[in-house]
Amino acid sequence: MFQKILLAYDGSVGSDRALEKATELALLTGGELAVLTVYRHHAMLEASISMVRGKLDPGGNLDETMKTTARETADHAKTRAKAAGVRKVTASIKAGPPARTIVSVAREKGVDLIVVGSRGLGSAEGFLLGSVSHKVTGLADCPVLVV
Amino acid sequence: MFQKILLAYDGSVGSDRALEKATELALLTGGELAVLTVYRHHAMLEASISMVRGKLDPGGNLDETMKTTARETADHAKTRAKAAGVRKVTASIKAGPPARTIVSVAREKGVDLIVVGSRGLGSAEGFLLGSVSHKVTGLADCPVLVV
Repeated sequence: MFQKILLAYDGSVGSDRALEKATELALLTGGELAVLTVYRHHAMLEASISMVRGKLDPGGNLDETMKTTARETADHAKTRAKAAGVRKVTASIKAGPPARTIVSVAREKGVDLIVVGSRGLGSAEGFLLGSVSHKVTGLADCPVLVV
Repeated sequence: MFQKILLAYDGSVGSDRALEKATELALLTGGELAVLTVYRHHAMLEASISMVRGKLDPGGNLDETMKTTARETADHAKTRAKAAGVRKVTASIKAGPPARTIVSVAREKGVDLIVVGSRGLGSAEGFLLGSVSHKVTGLADCPVLVV
Protein backbone atom coordinates (compact mmCIF):
# COMPACT_ATOMS: atom_id res chain seq x y z
CA MET A 1 0.00 0.00 0.00
CA PHE A 2 1.10 3.52 -0.83
CA GLN A 3 4.28 2.53 -2.62
CA LYS A 4 4.13 5.55 -4.93
CA ILE A 5 3.01 8.72 -3.23
CA LEU A 6 2.46 11.98 -5.07
CA LEU A 7 2.78 15.07 -2.91
CA ALA A 8 1.30 18.27 -4.29
CA TYR A 9 3.53 20.95 -2.80
CA ASP A 10 3.29 24.70 -3.24
CA GLY A 11 5.24 25.88 -0.21
CA SER A 12 2.13 26.95 1.74
CA VAL A 13 1.59 26.09 5.40
CA GLY A 14 -0.98 23.49 4.37
CA SER A 15 1.41 21.86 1.91
CA ASP A 16 4.13 21.85 4.58
CA ARG A 17 1.84 19.79 6.78
CA ALA A 18 1.14 17.57 3.79
CA LEU A 19 4.90 17.17 3.25
CA GLU A 20 5.32 16.00 6.84
CA LYS A 21 2.56 13.40 6.54
CA ALA A 22 3.68 12.23 3.11
CA THR A 23 7.21 11.81 4.44
CA GLU A 24 6.04 9.83 7.47
CA LEU A 25 3.85 7.65 5.28
CA ALA A 26 6.64 6.97 2.79
CA LEU A 27 8.95 6.00 5.66
CA LEU A 28 6.25 3.73 7.05
CA THR A 29 5.41 1.98 3.77
CA GLY A 30 8.93 2.09 2.32
CA GLY A 31 7.38 3.75 -0.69
CA GLU A 32 8.77 6.44 -2.95
CA LEU A 33 7.70 10.03 -2.96
CA ALA A 34 7.13 12.19 -6.04
CA VAL A 35 6.93 15.90 -5.25
CA LEU A 36 4.97 17.98 -7.72
CA THR A 37 4.77 21.75 -7.78
CA VAL A 38 2.18 23.15 -10.16
CA TYR A 39 2.52 26.68 -11.43
CA ARG A 40 0.46 28.75 -13.76
CA HIS A 41 1.41 30.01 -17.16
CA HIS A 42 1.64 33.70 -17.71
CA ALA A 43 -1.43 33.76 -19.93
CA MET A 44 -3.53 32.19 -17.20
CA LEU A 45 -2.54 34.93 -14.83
CA GLU A 46 -2.88 37.88 -17.15
CA ALA A 47 -6.14 39.07 -15.71
CA SER A 48 -5.02 38.92 -12.10
CA ILE A 49 -1.48 40.11 -12.65
CA SER A 50 -2.09 42.94 -15.08
CA MET A 51 -2.32 45.51 -12.31
CA VAL A 52 1.13 44.71 -10.98
CA ARG A 53 2.82 43.48 -14.09
CA GLY A 54 5.05 46.49 -14.36
CA LYS A 55 6.58 45.53 -11.09
CA LEU A 56 6.59 41.75 -11.36
CA ASP A 57 7.49 41.31 -14.96
CA PRO A 58 9.71 44.13 -16.16
CA GLY A 59 11.41 42.05 -18.81
CA GLY A 60 8.48 39.89 -19.85
CA ASN A 61 9.99 36.96 -18.01
CA LEU A 62 7.17 36.14 -15.64
CA ASP A 63 6.93 32.62 -17.02
CA GLU A 64 10.58 32.04 -16.30
CA THR A 65 10.31 33.56 -12.83
CA MET A 66 7.36 31.37 -11.96
CA LYS A 67 9.08 28.32 -13.32
CA THR A 68 12.21 29.03 -11.31
CA THR A 69 10.20 29.59 -8.14
CA ALA A 70 8.27 26.37 -8.74
CA ARG A 71 11.53 24.47 -9.24
CA GLU A 72 12.97 25.87 -6.01
CA THR A 73 9.76 25.02 -4.17
CA ALA A 74 9.69 21.43 -5.40
CA ASP A 75 13.40 20.97 -4.68
CA HIS A 76 12.95 22.30 -1.17
CA ALA A 77 10.35 19.62 -0.41
CA LYS A 78 12.53 16.97 -2.00
CA THR A 79 15.50 17.98 0.14
CA ARG A 80 13.43 17.79 3.31
CA ALA A 81 11.96 14.38 2.46
CA LYS A 82 15.38 13.01 1.60
CA ALA A 83 16.84 14.41 4.82
CA ALA A 84 14.08 12.60 6.71
CA GLY A 85 15.20 9.35 5.14
CA VAL A 86 12.71 8.61 2.36
CA ARG A 87 14.49 6.16 0.10
CA LYS A 88 13.49 7.62 -3.25
CA VAL A 89 12.30 11.16 -3.82
CA THR A 90 11.77 12.95 -7.11
CA ALA A 91 10.73 16.54 -7.69
CA SER A 92 8.95 17.83 -10.76
CA ILE A 93 7.11 20.96 -11.81
CA LYS A 94 4.30 21.45 -14.27
CA ALA A 95 2.29 24.38 -15.52
CA GLY A 96 -1.48 24.19 -15.58
CA PRO A 97 -4.65 24.44 -13.53
CA PRO A 98 -3.68 23.00 -10.12
CA ALA A 99 -6.23 20.26 -9.43
CA ARG A 100 -6.44 18.88 -12.96
CA THR A 101 -2.67 18.95 -13.34
CA ILE A 102 -2.12 17.13 -10.05
CA VAL A 103 -4.62 14.41 -11.00
CA SER A 104 -3.24 14.04 -14.51
CA VAL A 105 0.35 13.68 -13.23
CA ALA A 106 -0.90 11.15 -10.65
CA ARG A 107 -2.35 9.09 -13.51
CA GLU A 108 0.79 9.36 -15.62
CA LYS A 109 2.98 8.25 -12.76
CA GLY A 110 0.56 5.54 -11.64
CA VAL A 111 0.74 6.60 -8.01
CA ASP A 112 -1.45 4.94 -5.41
CA LEU A 113 -1.87 7.97 -3.15
CA ILE A 114 -2.05 11.72 -3.61
CA VAL A 115 -1.27 13.91 -0.60
CA VAL A 116 -2.48 17.51 -0.65
CA GLY A 117 -2.71 20.24 1.95
CA SER A 118 -6.06 21.66 2.88
CA ARG A 119 -6.51 25.30 3.52
CA GLY A 120 -7.18 24.32 7.07
CA LEU A 121 -10.26 26.40 7.51
CA GLY A 122 -11.95 23.67 9.49
CA SER A 123 -15.33 25.06 8.54
CA ALA A 124 -17.91 24.91 5.84
CA GLU A 125 -16.11 27.72 4.08
CA GLY A 126 -13.41 25.41 2.81
CA PHE A 127 -16.09 23.27 1.29
CA LEU A 128 -18.15 26.08 -0.13
CA LEU A 129 -15.25 27.89 -1.70
CA GLY A 130 -14.03 24.79 -3.45
CA SER A 131 -10.32 24.51 -2.82
CA VAL A 132 -7.74 22.62 -4.83
CA SER A 133 -7.87 19.74 -2.36
CA HIS A 134 -11.60 19.35 -2.88
CA LYS A 135 -11.20 19.32 -6.61
CA VAL A 136 -8.43 16.75 -6.38
CA THR A 137 -10.54 14.40 -4.26
CA GLY A 138 -13.34 14.78 -6.77
CA LEU A 139 -11.18 14.11 -9.81
CA ALA A 140 -8.64 11.55 -8.63
CA ASP A 141 -9.02 7.86 -9.24
CA CYS A 142 -6.71 6.88 -6.39
CA PRO A 143 -6.97 7.61 -2.65
CA VAL A 144 -6.30 11.20 -1.62
CA LEU A 145 -5.00 12.25 1.78
CA VAL A 146 -6.05 15.79 2.61
CA VAL A 147 -3.83 17.09 5.39
CA MET B 1 1.17 9.08 13.23
CA PHE B 2 -2.37 7.81 12.70
CA GLN B 3 -2.66 6.12 16.08
CA LYS B 4 -6.41 6.73 16.25
CA ILE B 5 -8.19 6.25 12.96
CA LEU B 6 -11.87 6.93 12.48
CA LEU B 7 -13.46 5.01 9.62
CA ALA B 8 -16.79 6.27 8.35
CA TYR B 9 -18.50 3.13 7.14
CA ASP B 10 -21.93 2.76 5.56
CA GLY B 11 -21.54 -0.56 3.81
CA SER B 12 -21.24 0.96 0.32
CA VAL B 13 -18.60 -0.12 -2.18
CA GLY B 14 -16.69 3.09 -1.50
CA SER B 15 -16.73 2.53 2.23
CA ASP B 16 -15.57 -1.06 1.70
CA ARG B 17 -12.51 0.29 -0.09
CA ALA B 18 -12.07 2.75 2.78
CA LEU B 19 -12.28 -0.13 5.26
CA GLU B 20 -9.49 -1.95 3.43
CA LYS B 21 -7.20 1.09 3.47
CA ALA B 22 -8.02 1.98 7.06
CA THR B 23 -7.26 -1.59 8.10
CA GLU B 24 -3.94 -1.62 6.25
CA LEU B 25 -3.00 1.74 7.75
CA ALA B 26 -3.90 0.65 11.28
CA LEU B 27 -1.79 -2.48 10.83
CA LEU B 28 1.08 -0.36 9.54
CA THR B 29 0.97 2.25 12.30
CA GLY B 30 -0.13 -0.09 15.08
CA GLY B 31 -2.96 2.31 15.68
CA GLU B 32 -6.52 1.65 16.74
CA LEU B 33 -9.54 1.82 14.52
CA ALA B 34 -12.90 3.32 15.43
CA VAL B 35 -15.66 2.37 13.01
CA LEU B 36 -18.57 4.79 12.81
CA THR B 37 -21.82 4.24 10.97
CA VAL B 38 -24.02 7.29 10.70
CA TYR B 39 -27.72 6.88 10.10
CA ARG B 40 -30.53 9.31 9.74
CA HIS B 41 -33.44 9.82 12.08
CA HIS B 42 -36.91 9.15 10.85
CA ALA B 43 -37.84 12.83 10.90
CA MET B 44 -34.95 13.67 8.59
CA LEU B 45 -36.20 11.19 6.07
CA GLU B 46 -39.88 11.95 6.22
CA ALA B 47 -39.98 13.84 2.96
CA SER B 48 -38.14 11.23 0.98
CA ILE B 49 -39.69 8.22 2.63
CA SER B 50 -43.30 9.34 2.77
CA MET B 51 -44.17 7.75 -0.54
CA VAL B 52 -43.06 4.31 0.56
CA ARG B 53 -43.67 4.54 4.26
CA GLY B 54 -46.54 2.12 4.18
CA LYS B 55 -44.19 -0.52 2.98
CA LEU B 56 -41.05 0.39 4.90
CA ASP B 57 -42.53 1.38 8.18
CA PRO B 58 -45.72 -0.54 8.86
CA GLY B 59 -45.38 -0.38 12.61
CA GLY B 60 -43.79 3.04 12.94
CA ASN B 61 -40.44 1.44 13.74
CA LEU B 62 -38.33 2.93 10.99
CA ASP B 63 -36.01 4.54 13.53
CA GLU B 64 -35.40 1.17 15.14
CA THR B 65 -34.93 -0.54 11.79
CA MET B 66 -32.37 2.03 10.70
CA LYS B 67 -30.59 1.82 14.03
CA THR B 68 -30.43 -1.96 13.82
CA THR B 69 -29.13 -1.84 10.25
CA ALA B 70 -26.51 0.75 11.25
CA ARG B 71 -25.42 -1.42 14.16
CA GLU B 72 -25.07 -4.46 11.90
CA THR B 73 -23.16 -2.41 9.34
CA ALA B 74 -20.70 -1.05 11.90
CA ASP B 75 -20.22 -4.47 13.48
CA HIS B 76 -19.55 -6.01 10.08
CA ALA B 77 -16.67 -3.59 9.49
CA LYS B 78 -15.36 -4.17 13.00
CA THR B 79 -15.38 -7.94 12.48
CA ARG B 80 -13.45 -7.61 9.24
CA ALA B 81 -10.84 -5.27 10.72
CA LYS B 82 -10.35 -7.52 13.73
CA ALA B 83 -10.03 -10.56 11.49
CA ALA B 84 -7.31 -8.72 9.57
CA GLY B 85 -5.42 -8.28 12.81
CA VAL B 86 -5.99 -4.69 13.89
CA ARG B 87 -5.19 -4.65 17.59
CA LYS B 88 -8.06 -2.53 18.80
CA VAL B 89 -11.30 -1.93 16.94
CA THR B 90 -14.46 -0.30 18.21
CA ALA B 91 -17.76 0.13 16.39
CA SER B 92 -20.29 2.84 17.11
CA ILE B 93 -23.37 4.27 15.44
CA LYS B 94 -24.81 7.74 15.55
CA ALA B 95 -27.82 9.47 14.04
CA GLY B 96 -27.38 12.78 12.25
CA PRO B 97 -26.31 14.47 9.05
CA PRO B 98 -23.41 12.31 7.77
CA ALA B 99 -20.52 14.75 7.29
CA ARG B 100 -21.11 16.86 10.38
CA THR B 101 -21.67 13.80 12.53
CA ILE B 102 -18.47 12.15 11.30
CA VAL B 103 -16.44 15.29 12.00
CA SER B 104 -17.98 15.83 15.40
CA VAL B 105 -17.32 12.22 16.46
CA ALA B 106 -13.74 12.60 15.18
CA ARG B 107 -13.30 15.61 17.48
CA GLU B 108 -14.86 13.86 20.48
CA LYS B 109 -12.63 10.85 20.02
CA GLY B 110 -9.55 12.95 19.29
CA VAL B 111 -8.63 10.88 16.24
CA ASP B 112 -5.71 11.87 14.05
CA LEU B 113 -7.13 10.56 10.79
CA ILE B 114 -10.57 10.16 9.25
CA VAL B 115 -10.97 7.62 6.44
CA VAL B 116 -13.99 7.95 4.16
CA GLY B 117 -14.99 6.37 0.90
CA SER B 118 -15.49 8.50 -2.17
CA ARG B 119 -18.25 7.81 -4.58
CA GLY B 120 -15.51 6.92 -6.99
CA LEU B 121 -16.83 8.97 -9.85
CA GLY B 122 -13.34 10.05 -10.83
CA SER B 123 -14.74 13.10 -12.49
CA ALA B 124 -15.83 16.63 -11.80
CA GLU B 125 -19.28 15.32 -10.97
CA GLY B 126 -18.16 14.09 -7.59
CA PHE B 127 -16.94 17.55 -6.82
CA LEU B 128 -19.90 19.39 -8.21
CA LEU B 129 -22.47 17.25 -6.49
CA GLY B 130 -20.82 17.70 -3.12
CA SER B 131 -20.52 14.27 -1.57
CA VAL B 132 -20.10 13.40 2.08
CA SER B 133 -16.35 12.92 1.60
CA HIS B 134 -16.01 16.46 0.26
CA LYS B 135 -17.91 17.88 3.16
CA VAL B 136 -15.80 15.92 5.61
CA THR B 137 -12.54 17.20 4.13
CA GLY B 138 -13.92 20.71 4.34
CA LEU B 139 -15.06 20.44 7.94
CA ALA B 140 -12.47 18.22 9.60
CA ASP B 141 -9.57 19.58 11.58
CA CYS B 142 -7.46 16.47 11.17
CA PRO B 143 -6.17 14.77 8.00
CA VAL B 144 -8.78 12.97 5.90
CA LEU B 145 -8.06 10.04 3.63
CA VAL B 146 -10.59 9.84 0.80
CA VAL B 147 -10.48 6.35 -0.68
